[in-house]
Amino acid sequence: MSESEFSLIEKYFSSPSRNLKHPCTLLGIGDDAAVMKLPAGHQLVVTMDTLVAGRHFPRQTSPYDIAYKSLAVNVSDLVAMAATPSFFLLSITLPEADENFLAEFSAGLFAAANAFSIALVGGDTCKGDLSISIQASGFVLDDSYVSRSGAAVGDRLFVSGELGAAALGLASVQGRVQLSPEQQQFCLDALNRPYPRLDMIDLLRRYASAAIDLSDGLLGDLGHILASSQVGAIIDKQKIPAYHALPLHNCFEYALSGGDDYQILFSVAADKLEAMNALATEQNLELFEIGVITESGFFMLDQHTTIDLANRRGFDHFAT
Amino acid sequence: MSESEFSLIEKYFSSPSRNLKHPCTLLGIGDDAAVMKLPAGHQLVVTMDTLVAGRHFPRQTSPYDIAYKSLAVNVSDLVAMAATPSFFLLSITLPEADENFLAEFSAGLFAAANAFSIALVGGDTCKGDLSISIQASGFVLDDSYVSRSGAAVGDRLFVSGELGAAALGLASVQGRVQLSPEQQQFCLDALNRPYPRLDMIDLLRRYASAAIDLSDGLLGDLGHILASSQVGAIIDKQKIPAYHALPLHNCFEYALSGGDDYQILFSVAADKLEAMNALATEQNLELFEIGVITESGFFMLDQHTTIDLANRRGFDHFAT
Repeated sequence: MSESEFSLIEKYFSSPSRNLKHPCTLLGIGDDAAVMKLPAGHQLVVTMDTLVAGRHFPRQTSPYDIAYKSLAVNVSDLVAMAATPSFFLLSITLPEADENFLAEFSAGLFAAANAFSIALVGGDTCKGDLSISIQASGFVLDDSYVSRSGAAVGDRLFVSGELGAAALGLASVQGRVQLSPEQQQFCLDALNRPYPRLDMIDLLRRYASAAIDLSDGLLGDLGHILASSQVGAIIDKQKIPAYHALPLHNCFEYALSGGDDYQILFSVAADKLEAMNALATEQNLELFEIGVITESGFFMLDQHTTIDLANRRGFDHFAT
Repeated sequence: MSESEFSLIEKYFSSPSRNLKHPCTLLGIGDDAAVMKLPAGHQLVVTMDTLVAGRHFPRQTSPYDIAYKSLAVNVSDLVAMAATPSFFLLSITLPEADENFLAEFSAGLFAAANAFSIALVGGDTCKGDLSISIQASGFVLDDSYVSRSGAAVGDRLFVSGELGAAALGLASVQGRVQLSPEQQQFCLDALNRPYPRLDMIDLLRRYASAAIDLSDGLLGDLGHILASSQVGAIIDKQKIPAYHALPLHNCFEYALSGGDDYQILFSVAADKLEAMNALATEQNLELFEIGVITESGFFMLDQHTTIDLANRRGFDHFAT
């Protein structure tokens, strides 16, 4: 362990050839702080998430995937606000200055950063139990961000893709379910390399009244929209796009309550549906209408029965 | 441990009455991300530091002090860039949802935030070994930030205050030195509640050619300025403002190589000295001129001898 903190940063994180050079970066990695210039007519959207080994990813996850996912979940939060990702800071805590780990980790980090068009501008390295904190920032045109609080009675609820594969991947890693090799690969990819829905930003900005990214599970995250917007909802179980690998009932459980999907859940006013659907078709986005915003309550139709969801909970990092 | 992650954040971190409401905050805590508006004619300065228990602070440090210091060290990085602190995000990882810890921690956090005029706008809570990541942002007037790389031959080197007390405080906690009760209290305050030199921002912006905050020790941090600016320096041991609690020789060691002082080290061009000194007098700032920038090399005068410092190292989190 002869590498010092400074030379580690230098070696694995400051290579200009690997890192995107964002046009807004006036001063990047290597000083007390970075300096950014915002484009005119834009506001800044900021988020921060920490991923802890053994909690947010299985300890056997590859360093490449840990880095990829850590950045993806933060970028997903920006997408849910309809912000375009711009720059991020990384603080990595690891037990020792393991060069193999850092080489793989930085490869995954820059692969993700380039895929998501976001530039690393600074951060920190520490010694300790493995965890990764990322703070990501994006830009939105003035006052065009989408929050959780704008859902109104009569708005339709949509999700941007299939749900449940990541949770099935985790269950498979933990030996709780048996999947076919193809299913397992698909579900592990969903778990370890989630794709933040950058292709949804434009549609969200133009048509969504409220949005959230599905990190804690559909029920928990829809609950956040309902609480923030002070409304209720009815969703239709038959319309939920559950990833199907197991008998139907189980798949719905993963789709409803499993975390880590990073699809977008959003609401759209009825009078914007036609225009939104036209744009979705044009941009080749497959959307799933799953329900409607109501005045109060939180229910799910299951053919001829109605289930009260008010007491169900989403994923909770402290509730174990 | 019945509190969920969401209600913990709600209870300890989202109280509007405790948190500063920054005029630039369009959307604060509670959504996927926060939204900020930058003042016209300003650039954004961003920094991020993680503090790990047992490494950046002794494990017996009070939750109040852990919070205070975690914010202070980040704000200090903004000050060193001549940026005015504006908003921050907090990611706290703790072994369990300990309400006593969180009550004390949030009290220290908001005491610091209010003292430094910076608003909490978002973040994350996780379960794991205790660590705190903070990402802090500030504003500077367009192109008026101060980096590490602007020091030029002939510039004078200054520090903004006494050095070594924080390192003595740590040595005292660890039983490596014996201090009087008064000295110990002073040194522990320096260690646990460092004051980021907000009162220096205006002077730095107007007169500093390069600046850095002293987190890793005078020699290591001056080394960073020299490397970034591609220059050398000669400093004068007799002019270094060492905090004096022990026999003189020991105090100099703590002042030269001890970390955590969070004073500002900066350089000023010779033709700006008079105006800078006038401003310092007017603003009641006591500055210590410790040396001069040269073309190359890194030396310390000690009366009639010259010591080559090129091989000495600053504090390194991985070099233990």
